[in-house]
Amino acid sequence: MIKAGIIGATGYAGGELVRLLLGHKEAEIVWYGSRSYVDQSYASIYQNMFQIVDAKCMDDNMEELAEQADVIFTATPQGLCASLVNENILSKAKVIDLSADFRLKDVNVYEEWYKIRHQAPQYIEEAVYGLCEINRERIRGARLIANPGCYPTCSTLSVYPLVKEGLIDPSTIIIDAKSGTSGAGRGAKTDNLFCEVNENIKAYGVAGHRHTPEIEEQLGYAAGVPVVLNFTPHLVPMNRGILITAYASLTKDVSYEEVKAVYDMYYDKERFVRVLPKDVCPQTKWVEGSNYVDVNFKIDPRTHRVIMMGAMDNLVKGAAGQAVQNMNLLFGLDEATGLQMVPVFP
Amino acid sequence: MIKAGIIGATGYAGGELVRLLLGHKEAEIVWYGSRSYVDQSYASIYQNMFQIVDAKCMDDNMEELAEQADVIFTATPQGLCASLVNENILSKAKVIDLSADFRLKDVNVYEEWYKIRHQAPQYIEEAVYGLCEINRERIRGARLIANPGCYPTCSTLSVYPLVKEGLIDPSTIIIDAKSGTSGAGRGAKTDNLFCEVNENIKAYGVAGHRHTPEIEEQLGYAAGVPVVLNFTPHLVPMNRGILITAYASLTKDVSYEEVKAVYDMYYDKERFVRVLPKDVCPQTKWVEGSNYVDVNFKIDPRTHRVIMMGAMDNLVKGAAGQAVQNMNLLFGLDEATGLQMVPVFP
Amino acid sequence: MIKAGIIGATGYAGGELVRLLLGHKEAEIVWYGSRSYVDQSYASIYQNMFQIVDAKCMDDNMEELAEQADVIFTATPQGLCASLVNENILSKAKVIDLSADFRLKDVNVYEEWYKIRHQAPQYIEEAVYGLCEINRERIRGARLIANPGCYPTCSTLSVYPLVKEGLIDPSTIIIDAKSGTSGAGRGAKTDNLFCEVNENIKAYGVAGHRHTPEIEEQLGYAAGVPVVLNFTPHLVPMNRGILITAYASLTKDVSYEEVKAVYDMYYDKERFVRVLPKDVCPQTKWVEGSNYVDVNFKIDPRTHRVIMMGAMDNLVKGAAGQAVQNMNLLFGLDEATGLQMVPVFP
Amino acid sequence: MIKAGIIGATGYAGGELVRLLLGHKEAEIVWYGSRSYVDQSYASIYQNMFQIVDAKCMDDNMEELAEQADVIFTATPQGLCASLVNENILSKAKVIDLSADFRLKDVNVYEEWYKIRHQAPQYIEEAVYGLCEINRERIRGARLIANPGCYPTCSTLSVYPLVKEGLIDPSTIIIDAKSGTSGAGRGAKTDNLFCEVNENIKAYGVAGHRHTPEIEEQLGYAAGVPVVLNFTPHLVPMNRGILITAYASLTKDVSYEEVKAVYDMYYDKERFVRVLPKDVCPQTKWVEGSNYVDVNFKIDPRTHRVIMMGAMDNLVKGAAGQAVQNMNLLFGLDEATGLQMVPVFP
Repeated sequence: MIKAGIIGATGYAGGELVRLLLGHKEAEIVWYGSRSYVDQSYASIYQNMFQIVDAKCMDDNMEELAEQADVIFTATPQGLCASLVNENILSKAKVIDLSADFRLKDVNVYEEWYKIRHQAPQYIEEAVYGLCEINRERIRGARLIANPGCYPTCSTLSVYPLVKEGLIDPSTIIIDAKSGTSGAGRGAKTDNLFCEVNENIKAYGVAGHRHTPEIEEQLGYAAGVPVVLNFTPHLVPMNRGILITAYASLTKDVSYEEVKAVYDMYYDKERFVRVLPKDVCPQTKWVEGSNYVDVNFKIDPRTHRVIMMGAMDNLVKGAAGQAVQNMNLLFGLDEATGLQMVPVFP
Repeated sequence: MIKAGIIGATGYAGGELVRLLLGHKEAEIVWYGSRSYVDQSYASIYQNMFQIVDAKCMDDNMEELAEQADVIFTATPQGLCASLVNENILSKAKVIDLSADFRLKDVNVYEEWYKIRHQAPQYIEEAVYGLCEINRERIRGARLIANPGCYPTCSTLSVYPLVKEGLIDPSTIIIDAKSGTSGAGRGAKTDNLFCEVNENIKAYGVAGHRHTPEIEEQLGYAAGVPVVLNFTPHLVPMNRGILITAYASLTKDVSYEEVKAVYDMYYDKERFVRVLPKDVCPQTKWVEGSNYVDVNFKIDPRTHRVIMMGAMDNLVKGAAGQAVQNMNLLFGLDEATGLQMVPVFP
Repeated sequence: MIKAGIIGATGYAGGELVRLLLGHKEAEIVWYGSRSYVDQSYASIYQNMFQIVDAKCMDDNMEELAEQADVIFTATPQGLCASLVNENILSKAKVIDLSADFRLKDVNVYEEWYKIRHQAPQYIEEAVYGLCEINRERIRGARLIANPGCYPTCSTLSVYPLVKEGLIDPSTIIIDAKSGTSGAGRGAKTDNLFCEVNENIKAYGVAGHRHTPEIEEQLGYAAGVPVVLNFTPHLVPMNRGILITAYASLTKDVSYEEVKAVYDMYYDKERFVRVLPKDVCPQTKWVEGSNYVDVNFKIDPRTHRVIMMGAMDNLVKGAAGQAVQNMNLLFGLDEATGLQMVPVFP
Repeated sequence: MIKAGIIGATGYAGGELVRLLLGHKEAEIVWYGSRSYVDQSYASIYQNMFQIVDAKCMDDNMEELAEQADVIFTATPQGLCASLVNENILSKAKVIDLSADFRLKDVNVYEEWYKIRHQAPQYIEEAVYGLCEINRERIRGARLIANPGCYPTCSTLSVYPLVKEGLIDPSTIIIDAKSGTSGAGRGAKTDNLFCEVNENIKAYGVAGHRHTPEIEEQLGYAAGVPVVLNFTPHLVPMNRGILITAYASLTKDVSYEEVKAVYDMYYDKERFVRVLPKDVCPQTKWVEGSNYVDVNFKIDPRTHRVIMMGAMDNLVKGAAGQAVQNMNLLFGLDEATGLQMVPVFP
């Protein structure tokens, strides 16, 4: 039985981690960390957990937590994990960081986009970017996992095969992303009030969103050259779900079948990436509550571009589900353990 | 392994049955019945099932289905189950009817409220009303289960203990109910279009909704006298969830603790009914995707009434989840098998 | 041209007042008060007003405002208007208070339900309760208007005729109310975040909501005896709209036509109350953005009760629209000036 | 007083035309055409019009209508207007066609994208594309107006100035559009049911949507060369609103101020196009219910692209509002008559 501790258990990603780990046969939660609610019953914060979780919220003591847990999830704002992690902790427990602290290999890029000083740059090199479908083998042996961002997970998986196989020109990639509001977190801000989000859609962080360099770095590995792209997120009036619509110029004439074969080559054996049938566009509702990413594409012969689409649940594959997938790999379990939820529709 | 067949597998309740049975370790689906989509791939109708369900939709041949299945779920409009069921079928398979055909013991009441002729009145007496928390023992030995309606499930469970213990005057009961739109089914009607339901709320079926006599009958058993009440459903712009707000006059002065003790007496050991802490009102989001019913109450000393509240997911405890709970009882399994989903929040 | 000043212009009710007064031919706004945003451009807070409103936000200086304005609207939390109003102000400008400070004639009831000390009890007697359809004549000559609460407006108008004419027993009245989220204001609270409200419904303030004594007082005037009733509000995932479903026992056998005649007697000539055709239930979407209240009723011969329903836009007839209607009466204008917006659908 | 007739008055665009014309001082509606509801009271279909509209629905007799009306609006599916219009009608009444029949100058392009035979190609040349901000002068003298599509209106206005001034390379334009569900019409289709749209987002018509050639034609006029581009619409869970996010490569280094000056040059004097302040992204809620289009842009120096954004209400500026704007021009009225509604927020 894997003993799991969560720091940041009362955010939306933390709450989803609790839901998933409660349904995981090989894991138990030993620490519900939440600095804001220390000593309060966890189920009084998340009433869906009433009579399911008895525990009280704990503080952020990662040293103490490392004594009690086999794995520590940090579902906290940028900077916290880097400020706490150390050799003692890493020697005792695996750390899966859901923040951005260890996702970017270039500390200067991190500090420029996140506007904070990195507190533990010495672990950046060691940390493994936990996008299981691409880094599976390296994840298995890691101590510190940088769990990918929600947008980067969906964007990278939607675009990766065509970049890797050279079918698209990386300098032409444009990613237009749409996200449900849970991605904005549970902080009480006017912008995220029901009446401000409902019946509304807007772009935000245009040409400056922090997930941009993360997507660029991952696609850069695939391309073999640095990638610079446009990424525009939008806020959609729904709780969960991310949809990616990506555009790029084809490098040569290709048929539907050729492109489909490339996607299948990468994802045919993947448990959580589904390449949809021809002409079926991904919809976020079809993956809600599950760890799936649904992808598909459409070739436009008129413009010689391909439109790549991906849909997933931002709190599952985009956060807690992928974190559990990483945990499974770290502990030698079947990768899908505790993650075989059928999507909830409607 | 229980072999399960579903007639009406492409309605919302049918789709939810598929989701739940796929996660049930002791059951497998052998028949995806859907007259409208015969021979089409089930996953082409419900794309969330892509790569999860391979089967094609079958017709409504209940005789043939009884040969192949141990249990038959009919998630179909009123009248269908009654028109198909017969001794041969019941001798071979258990039947769990999610329609109203066998819920009312008085065939005249059925025919008056549903405006159709009952095709199999000879099975009404035998059929067991499948509200597990109340009829558990009788369910175990049944051949034909009348799976309760969504509103009646939530209404009855919210009010039952106080009627049964004589704390409220049954002639004063008023039930004001609010439901998500999945309760209206998947039929293409103008009234259920997104733009007609979104940003809107309305009452419907006022003083005439068909679930009224079902609630009255069940509460009548508890009261020991016939009960006549007001039941008013409302359509709420959300997919899932039913909230019941019920009002009744107290028969004597009671304290919070006394009423709480009555609820606890009935539900303390129940797996799927949660009596919430004092002053915490049930919310539909806290039970979404799960088989729970959350109930609570508030005494109003000014009016000498008690306000009783209940929340549940109409497609789970209000339809498919309760049907699986009944199946578990019919086949001697632990009642919660396949139903231990943690509610999905947000 | 009536010079209007608004204190609290950046709340949702204040914003709606701005929208309505901008479309009012006989009024102009001279003061956009908002303590939180002093000196900021109003259109930078409400971007819908970009290029429409040039003004900056001002502070709460009601003395100064009385010099500049003919009418002052206070769309502020309880207590503010009572703490500022005085003889000098009332001698120079009409005051329309959208808070509860002057709605209840018994100061003890106010202090008990609102848990604050009333700062200007000497004006309670003089203040006129601004429910135009009932107090029209007294409003015309007033200096200080207590603009009714949103729930009380819809509740009172839906129930008033039958109480007044003695067709229902006041001691049996139960009001089950449902409101969009704008009624909760623009304050940044976790409970009002999109993800907490969306796909959710709950009751709140059960047996204790502050609008209860306001409704009781108004219906008490109609009944000629004190009225004590149950009022239960619910939060619905939509921006605007209030729906009232009220229940009461009939005092005698009455036909549809008789009850309809009573509603018509009171509302036939009213510009903003529409008694709907038989069997058509009010829907909030049908009045959105307008000053209408749609009402209807259904007799239930089985229980000898009548179900009364009302729908309106909580920010228009429930707040800003009614305030403008009061202003029109105070200044001798046609009551519907600036209020003839057709409801927006869908 | 302009006498207006509407064919297709019970669709969402038709209903919005009714709302706007009822608030227009110089126009009156003389014909509520709706083949599906002939002889039924219009207010029984759109209950928001109860006690506002007394008329009954009429059939599609355009010849007869031309006798009674000064202007005929056709808010009908493709093909109907072209099948009915003739010289007699055009000699008696102005025709404003909200369908696509006369938007494309090349009849072959029309027939290829719409898959129907054009019934009146002889009027294509004469018809004026009613995008008022661009074709104002030609509209004034027209007999037949092709009212622009919703997506093309928002797309063209957002991108037009930079194409016209040569700041962007037309061959690099990519338009990613998001629309509320009213754009899909009021037809009863499963795909548009509340439960299918709510909590969901998807792309549709990828690389094949019919509005593509319309946008290309209009931007081609601006560019002086044929334009081929990518256009991808998405269905968003909201009633109203279109948001455009457009991408293109800059043809030279430009500053924010230079690009802003170009937008201002085209829109500074426009009543219904608002160029937002720096770094403020358009939001659909800020224009809801109004005839405004809010536009803005962001230069990305990293990719040397510009991101152009536009938001509007698809039923107002994207349909009925623009039709009224065209009517005003046709009849020599102030262009903003009846269109000065302040956006409704929230």
